[in-house]
Amino acid sequence: MRLHVPIRLRWSDLDAYGHVNNAEMLRLLEEARIEAFWVSHDARDAAVGASTAVIDGRPGADTITLISRQEVEYLAPVPYLRAPLDVELWIANMSGARLDVCYEVFAPPESEPRTLFARASTTIVLVDAASGRPRRITDHERAAWSPYQDEPLRFTRRT
Amino acid sequence: MRLHVPIRLRWSDLDAYGHVNNAEMLRLLEEARIEAFWVSHDARDAAVGASTAVIDGRPGADTITLISRQEVEYLAPVPYLRAPLDVELWIANMSGARLDVCYEVFAPPESEPRTLFARASTTIVLVDAASGRPRRITDHERAAWSPYQDEPLRFTRRT
Amino acid sequence: MRLHVPIRLRWSDLDAYGHVNNAEMLRLLEEARIEAFWVSHDARDAAVGASTAVIDGRPGADTITLISRQEVEYLAPVPYLRAPLDVELWIANMSGARLDVCYEVFAPPESEPRTLFARASTTIVLVDAASGRPRRITDHERAAWSPYQDEPLRFTRRT
Amino acid sequence: MRLHVPIRLRWSDLDAYGHVNNAEMLRLLEEARIEAFWVSHDARDAAVGASTAVIDGRPGADTITLISRQEVEYLAPVPYLRAPLDVELWIANMSGARLDVCYEVFAPPESEPRTLFARASTTIVLVDAASGRPRRITDHERAAWSPYQDEPLRFTRRT
Repeated sequence: MRLHVPIRLRWSDLDAYGHVNNAEMLRLLEEARIEAFWVSHDARDAAVGASTAVIDGRPGADTITLISRQEVEYLAPVPYLRAPLDVELWIANMSGARLDVCYEVFAPPESEPRTLFARASTTIVLVDAASGRPRRITDHERAAWSPYQDEPLRFTRRT
Repeated sequence: MRLHVPIRLRWSDLDAYGHVNNAEMLRLLEEARIEAFWVSHDARDAAVGASTAVIDGRPGADTITLISRQEVEYLAPVPYLRAPLDVELWIANMSGARLDVCYEVFAPPESEPRTLFARASTTIVLVDAASGRPRRITDHERAAWSPYQDEPLRFTRRT
Repeated sequence: MRLHVPIRLRWSDLDAYGHVNNAEMLRLLEEARIEAFWVSHDARDAAVGASTAVIDGRPGADTITLISRQEVEYLAPVPYLRAPLDVELWIANMSGARLDVCYEVFAPPESEPRTLFARASTTIVLVDAASGRPRRITDHERAAWSPYQDEPLRFTRRT
Repeated sequence: MRLHVPIRLRWSDLDAYGHVNNAEMLRLLEEARIEAFWVSHDARDAAVGASTAVIDGRPGADTITLISRQEVEYLAPVPYLRAPLDVELWIANMSGARLDVCYEVFAPPESEPRTLFARASTTIVLVDAASGRPRRITDHERAAWSPYQDEPLRFTRRT
């Protein structure tokens, strides 16, 4: 099963070529990840998959999430769109302190055709804020995330 | 009358102090402005004040909007919030090719207290894309924007 | 007397119009300020006015600098340039915990003509990190900065 | 042989964790790439490997560079540094319209220890601006870049 996270572009995501910049794409994935996995402490914000949002990301929280690795294939330039992109997101691996998140970034659901703009994966390491050392995925986290575990992406452009 | 434009933060709007960066605030105002005044060409996107959205901002459009001046008073640090900020927006002056947009940036409507984070104004000049020269506000634009014309902000921190 | 701080653009400072984005301009001023006023703890970095660099900006330092106000007049669009901009910077007022920094942003010194791209001012409040309250400019800071005190900018586009 | 490109951080590259943000790292690589491969049209800017800088990146130029793929391993968090990072950069493959650029991002040369912060690769496709279609690497480009051709990076964190 996959999460669907709507992610709005900003006009400033465009670079001088008039397309969403390649680095900015990683910020969009970051937002999708936060929306999906981080507890929201705003009462009214329960937009997406509240059941998977179990990491406390507030300043002073127990856990820090470090990015260990990222891989992106850019399949089509992303123009400026006012309707949110549809970021599909799932977990390919969970082991120890490590989590592999995969994404497929699509045009807004109503678009014709429904372009696949990018495929990506991010390896996250959960780190104990106090000790600065990796800490294992908890049973609670594993239970929340297991329904969204799926096959890893196959990247086709590696040399 | 004022427009209310909901603007979502991104986690990357925060700087190393853990607050929304002062420069990033101008990007949030930029988004609010685009939402309010630029025609959306996404069928499903009619979130805010469609009646005021009369500037065509697409690549190749007739008009470019240049920023001539900005002024911001930062009244309280903006923490990371998942619910959208409530950007109030109105037009203080329209004359010739020039438009003064004013903003008050509030915490999300449900927040208690409803903090006023910032006050700002932006002077926009409408420029003809072909000639690169300022071009007058059209009757159509003036009619669309007049209902949202209001007193200019009084800035209190000028020296 | 004025400080001259060379500030390099990045290609990503450009927006879809192909010019340095208006919000990004504030990041460039931020960099110029840091270069001028913050102690560098890199041994080899003594590029600019070391004598004015007396604020310790490291994580965990005693002082936080908050931005209370900014005003910018954009006089000419800034194209992508590889040679650093020449940011002239001086202090207009110092009183209590408050500091008004003024800037004029010029094309690189070798350019012909030497375009003035923008004029700006930033009001900074020095805040004690522990108490979160404003703290007075110290004698040491005042002595370091006094040689660079000059007339405030006259903004010409206020309405 | 490898190019060494000094890349300065900005304070705004840090995120709320106080480290250079993972997405921002790609902007730093973008800057290194531009410095290395794009012709500079500033007379005074001949900082790095002018002999490899053969792509004309100006607005209206014949060639657009699209990013097709990126991969990054983040080996250590990058703190705020005033001295420039030392980005080592070389070309792993050139074939047809495609170029694989590899990077190792090191602490400034004077640092002790000289930390390796990240390893990355970017696949670039050269596109003819007029037709929008890939165009082959020219003999001139190949001659300029061949001295900097080296083994591809071995990424160690792929699953």
